[in-house]
Amino acid sequence: MISEKMKDLVSKSSVIRAMFEEGKQMAKIYGKENVYDFSLGNPSVAPPETVKEAIKDILDNEEPTFVHGYTSNSGYEDVLQFVAEKLNQKFGTDFTPQCIAMTNGAAGGINVIFKVLLNPGDEVIAFAPFFGEYRNYAVNYDANLVVVDPDFEKMQINFKDFESKITHKTKAVIINSPNNPSGVIYSEETLNTVAEILYKKQKEFGTSIYLVSDEPYRELAYDGAVVPYVTKFYKNAIVGYSFSKTLSLPGERIGYIAVSPEADSFEEIMAGVSVATRILGFVNAPSLFQRVVLKCFDEKSDLDVYDRNRKYLYNMLTSLGFECIYPQGAFYLFPKTPIADDAKFCNDAKEFRILMVPGSAFGCPGYARLAYCVSFDTIKNSEESFRKLAKKYGMIK
Amino acid sequence: MISEKMKDLVSKSSVIRAMFEEGKQMAKIYGKENVYDFSLGNPSVAPPETVKEAIKDILDNEEPTFVHGYTSNSGYEDVLQFVAEKLNQKFGTDFTPQCIAMTNGAAGGINVIFKVLLNPGDEVIAFAPFFGEYRNYAVNYDANLVVVDPDFEKMQINFKDFESKITHKTKAVIINSPNNPSGVIYSEETLNTVAEILYKKQKEFGTSIYLVSDEPYRELAYDGAVVPYVTKFYKNAIVGYSFSKTLSLPGERIGYIAVSPEADSFEEIMAGVSVATRILGFVNAPSLFQRVVLKCFDEKSDLDVYDRNRKYLYNMLTSLGFECIYPQGAFYLFPKTPIADDAKFCNDAKEFRILMVPGSAFGCPGYARLAYCVSFDTIKNSEESFRKLAKKYGMIK
Repeated sequence: MISEKMKDLVSKSSVIRAMFEEGKQMAKIYGKENVYDFSLGNPSVAPPETVKEAIKDILDNEEPTFVHGYTSNSGYEDVLQFVAEKLNQKFGTDFTPQCIAMTNGAAGGINVIFKVLLNPGDEVIAFAPFFGEYRNYAVNYDANLVVVDPDFEKMQINFKDFESKITHKTKAVIINSPNNPSGVIYSEETLNTVAEILYKKQKEFGTSIYLVSDEPYRELAYDGAVVPYVTKFYKNAIVGYSFSKTLSLPGERIGYIAVSPEADSFEEIMAGVSVATRILGFVNAPSLFQRVVLKCFDEKSDLDVYDRNRKYLYNMLTSLGFECIYPQGAFYLFPKTPIADDAKFCNDAKEFRILMVPGSAFGCPGYARLAYCVSFDTIKNSEESFRKLAKKYGMIK
Repeated sequence: MISEKMKDLVSKSSVIRAMFEEGKQMAKIYGKENVYDFSLGNPSVAPPETVKEAIKDILDNEEPTFVHGYTSNSGYEDVLQFVAEKLNQKFGTDFTPQCIAMTNGAAGGINVIFKVLLNPGDEVIAFAPFFGEYRNYAVNYDANLVVVDPDFEKMQINFKDFESKITHKTKAVIINSPNNPSGVIYSEETLNTVAEILYKKQKEFGTSIYLVSDEPYRELAYDGAVVPYVTKFYKNAIVGYSFSKTLSLPGERIGYIAVSPEADSFEEIMAGVSVATRILGFVNAPSLFQRVVLKCFDEKSDLDVYDRNRKYLYNMLTSLGFECIYPQGAFYLFPKTPIADDAKFCNDAKEFRILMVPGSAFGCPGYARLAYCVSFDTIKNSEESFRKLAKKYGMIK
């Protein structure tokens, strides 16, 4: 009796649900500390103490019907102004408050942007490996996700395949850097080439192609790595940001969209963003946490914890013979699986109480994703299990 | 360059936006206290003090990665359990935690339910007068809203028209009681007849027709009026609740869906709710406020304030000759306009610095909606303006 689309989605997602349930089951049998669950991208570090102080300060000193009341669909005026100014200071951009809309995390923001841009049958391009939800977000608005083959060497972008897949129906291209699942940061060179190709194709087809940058991991860049800001490379650029990882607030659903003031149809887009936010049922981004943004924009959780995990897990896996790009950001490792069948490999790993997600879920078979936003002990204690797994595949003796 | 659907939506919503801007302009010219703005349903009463205390208590005593972390798509397990128990105590229902999903307010909840239920071309029935957003929520999923003519006498339901409009394509019927904009509460008799008709039509067409009850105003019932609970009248019933008005937290986006355990395809629906919550970009209802629900479920803002406003404004308007049903709930009055052209009437009212919304926006021309969630002074001070308006139409001398 549920809709045809949902039937399909439910049957697909029950595979992930089955894995989740299996993990819970394993934890019951072996004890939580004896299961090495690298399957979930849920921040393991507490929010900075300033978030708590900010909330208390707001509750004690601001007018409650204002703090908890409906805001404009795009957000509080002072918050929009503040975010625009902060971004301009940080990235040398030219955002006005009219360029910004506060959103229900990046997932909400991307849904809003897709709702605004996409006609049925339009195409959205994603680069493998990519966050699997992008397909659902595009299909929500009856658009099709077109996947560009991976650049296996550097996990940057396979430009040849990209160029060949742009058509007159291409309405948006979505990137995610630092990347989930590879941990790679797209370089300035990569973004320059993306922009070049898009400008050329826009001219060829007489269309506007929007580059949507999904940036929940922007602040998770290690060794001083710089994450280039997309509006500086391309005019039709839209950033979807989330405070989920930087401030460890994924459950609070707070983020923003920043649309380049130079984007084609800028005013139509922003009017659409406001309407889409309303009618999709978001209405406004959670109001208290909009005000928290005013006080905690520059704060960060203790991201060094992830850096330590990254180095340790990378060294451990590579010393066991796993091939893996050294990730510059986010909190994921994306090793090659020793057999082509990544689903089988991840299934075999369960024998040693290791949970990870097959690369196929990210449009990249032959790989597996490990989320290292776990306790350091989980990583250390998993070594023996990984050793057994490597032995099973003859990678070590 | 934005989608065709959005172009249409933006052009329509710019009418409301124009009104909103005009109101702001009027406030600048005449002073805010001299503009009688009855156009917005934004609670004017502060949340109960216990909300603030609950938040502080949670921040001080619960684990922050738990409080602010991702929850299951349907919500924290303990919150689902608690809500089910509370509803069972209050309404004698048989909800299990599996019947409940925490949502981004009622607007988010209804979008989730519509996403789960509706195939393109399906029909959703609403009863005029109705909250205009229902049309957008249905169209989001390519369904059509079918509007049943008003019952002008009592603003209950025009059953004859209702019955004639149910077809094999009818997938859902949406009701809203206490009603926005009429303030009427649907009686037990009304719900019994709705159920009778739906059971008959389900049998006739061999379909399942879901009755979705949008209940943000449930607790705003005056003079001891009882709001009947819909799952007791009909098996295929789904309640969409919001704490927006009861706790004065509309900006925080917190509510729940409760699906009758007897509903057809119950398990499929609940699996769909979880998936839809995720892929629409809600991911989970804001986590901190889910935990606030655990502590404040039985709390209420000072709703007597609205009751006082209701009586005063009703008496004022009727003594000036306006015809109006005495509202039993919500915070709206819905008088008949003295001329058939409700848009013209609302426009004329601006001359006297009164802002209200034409009934046409609720599928009920010839009426106007006044939201009395304003300060008592605004109501008192508006009397002179309403007197002039009544004089203009020859209602008084």
